[in-house]
Amino acid sequence: MKLLSSPASPYARKVRLTARIKGLADRIEETTTDTNTPGNADLMRVNPLSKIPALITDDGLMVYDSAVICEYLDDQAPAPVLFPTDPAKRWPVLVQSALGDGILDAAILLVYEKRFRPEDKWVPAWMERQQAKIDGAIAHLEAAPPAFDGQPDYGTLTIACALGYLDFRHAGTWRANAPKMVAWLDKFAAAVPGFGETAPPPA
Amino acid sequence: MKLLSSPASPYARKVRLTARIKGLADRIEETTTDTNTPGNADLMRVNPLSKIPALITDDGLMVYDSAVICEYLDDQAPAPVLFPTDPAKRWPVLVQSALGDGILDAAILLVYEKRFRPEDKWVPAWMERQQAKIDGAIAHLEAAPPAFDGQPDYGTLTIACALGYLDFRHAGTWRANAPKMVAWLDKFAAAVPGFGETAPPPA
Repeated sequence: MKLLSSPASPYARKVRLTARIKGLADRIEETTTDTNTPGNADLMRVNPLSKIPALITDDGLMVYDSAVICEYLDDQAPAPVLFPTDPAKRWPVLVQSALGDGILDAAILLVYEKRFRPEDKWVPAWMERQQAKIDGAIAHLEAAPPAFDGQPDYGTLTIACALGYLDFRHAGTWRANAPKMVAWLDKFAAAVPGFGETAPPPA
Repeated sequence: MKLLSSPASPYARKVRLTARIKGLADRIEETTTDTNTPGNADLMRVNPLSKIPALITDDGLMVYDSAVICEYLDDQAPAPVLFPTDPAKRWPVLVQSALGDGILDAAILLVYEKRFRPEDKWVPAWMERQQAKIDGAIAHLEAAPPAFDGQPDYGTLTIACALGYLDFRHAGTWRANAPKMVAWLDKFAAAVPGFGETAPPPA
């Protein structure tokens, strides 16, 4: 399999972490792919939206976005199960992943505000709107940290990657008001070696 | 079930359309929910990210985002199956939905550029970046329209809602270069009454 990816992309990290948890990393060739320059034809052939991560399977199927790739990879090896099929487990896991992806979507928009706009085009109300989504999600998690018994699933791995991205690009300010989630992330990182292995490079 | 929703939200339309296709609309009470005003506590109790659609199930589970709600609803009634479990069908359907969601994500960012920023803060390069994602996706679809035999699935319904949103908020400019997809959407709308029933109100 070939993965169009980037060491700094948190969505790609979800996929790279999933591959490591599932023991599939050796079967995936990762290619660093630039999404900042428009018109990357190699990427658009795989994902017309010009987004990473995007996966080309051994059968030649083009798979995106990160959620679909992670579920696809989960299906390629039996254990551990990251997407439970039992409804009592599946919906909470998928909702948790949606919360983590929502943190990432807001955190990325904050990064893009500065990457794609000169400072005189920044709009504080827009940035506060995104920050409020992150703050709301962190407060929700801190009030009831996700169950974690040492075995990751797609929900907890997405939350971990989201918090890792807040550390990477947003100076870890979430930590000040979320001591339980700080401990939670420490426990996750200690139990899941792939989390450290997929950490973004120093900024 | 209670759905926090909005008549104009294309992500909510995916859910409202799914409910109609599955024969579940009578079991769902829809509440129009404002996401433009910050700090909507009623919404944040359901989805800490302050986004719609968000569903409260009869068991009291809070479910989001639109993809998770649609899969949840698909599981609440046996037919028609919108999320196939057979891998040969499942991955193409999920990738198609990711393409539709990607069109929507870009189209929404273009709307938000004008809704949340005064005109002197608009950034043409950012808007062109989003438009290129839409154009890339439409060209990809036009080159090989999704198979559609009259029976919708989560992939085709997401594509239909994405095209419907481009008609609603972006003056249907996609139509000029995509005659096959125009015919495809006509066929979809004729075969799936819920599509017309969930159309956004006149702008």
